[in-house]
Amino acid sequence: MALGMDYAQQDCSLARALEVVGERWSMLIVRDAFYGVRRFNDFLAHLNIPRAVLTGRLRSLVAAGVLDKEPYQQSPVRYGYNLTSAGRELWLPIYALARWGERHASEGGARTVFSHATCGTRLDIVGSCPTCGVLVAPQDVMMRPGPGAVSEMRQDPVSRALGRPHRLLEPIEQLIEPTTEPVG
Amino acid sequence: MALGMDYAQQDCSLARALEVVGERWSMLIVRDAFYGVRRFNDFLAHLNIPRAVLTGRLRSLVAAGVLDKEPYQQSPVRYGYNLTSAGRELWLPIYALARWGERHASEGGARTVFSHATCGTRLDIVGSCPTCGVLVAPQDVMMRPGPGAVSEMRQDPVSRALGRPHRLLEPIEQLIEPTTEPVG
Repeated sequence: MALGMDYAQQDCSLARALEVVGERWSMLIVRDAFYGVRRFNDFLAHLNIPRAVLTGRLRSLVAAGVLDKEPYQQSPVRYGYNLTSAGRELWLPIYALARWGERHASEGGARTVFSHATCGTRLDIVGSCPTCGVLVAPQDVMMRPGPGAVSEMRQDPVSRALGRPHRLLEPIEQLIEPTTEPVG
Repeated sequence: MALGMDYAQQDCSLARALEVVGERWSMLIVRDAFYGVRRFNDFLAHLNIPRAVLTGRLRSLVAAGVLDKEPYQQSPVRYGYNLTSAGRELWLPIYALARWGERHASEGGARTVFSHATCGTRLDIVGSCPTCGVLVAPQDVMMRPGPGAVSEMRQDPVSRALGRPHRLLEPIEQLIEPTTEPVG
């Protein structure tokens, strides 16, 4: 019996959600979109997966209404991917799962710290601001490297850009340093 | 390039969490454990997956410290699986993802409604009780079929037992009706 792509006999909202974001790499693509990654080549550089896998996952996420695809450049045309309003609501489960991973599956403390951009308070376990008493929308969340970040781990331009404090959903293009191509 | 089982280059708590619960079916096994499923054959009946897949996933979840395995019967020995304290903390991400699936990937409304056992109020989007103002621990959550439940979809004894209102983590064994074997 093969393991298919859906969970047809599971009459359950969790199974439906996993059909959208449960495929390998899909949730990390959505995470990167929250972090401000929008361009195909930037996803490719940061995720380091085969082009065909990335293409397939992006197509599925667009078809499911999680991402929107729109051109950011003409001649040659290049497409960027942005979270839809439904996609942005994945912030809560992704944040909750990351906090679980931080507590139970990681060593050395938080890789990334998420705080309320308005007041600087670190978000609580469900993504609320304990100071302001509000559930913080992703565009009001500031991300920065935490004590457990392994800064030497990845040195590609996208990883370096993502390591700078910035708001979620803020496009990282302007944070990416120009690549210095060796002359040879 | 093969898609491996881990996300070694992703220095991220979400990637670590997905290495634990991101494999196909793993999160639905954890969901069933919250719903009170404990015995191998009950997982098998409800998930309807190959035995070898279930065996492998349960073993991984035990190794990762999400489930504990302990005998519930001697001669022949039979094992049951219970969520550890780390496993029980997966309630928040699983609940958040299910609510997302309910809003954006399901039709016909909530399959399952989760409420605070103490006061009967339906949980809010992050799993808190709006009446009592507390984040509700899973053992204090009551589950019952919602307006979108497809009651005729599954008629195996485990599905029927799970369709009765009960608290999360309450073992469903006593809710399962004895199977009437046809005499022939």
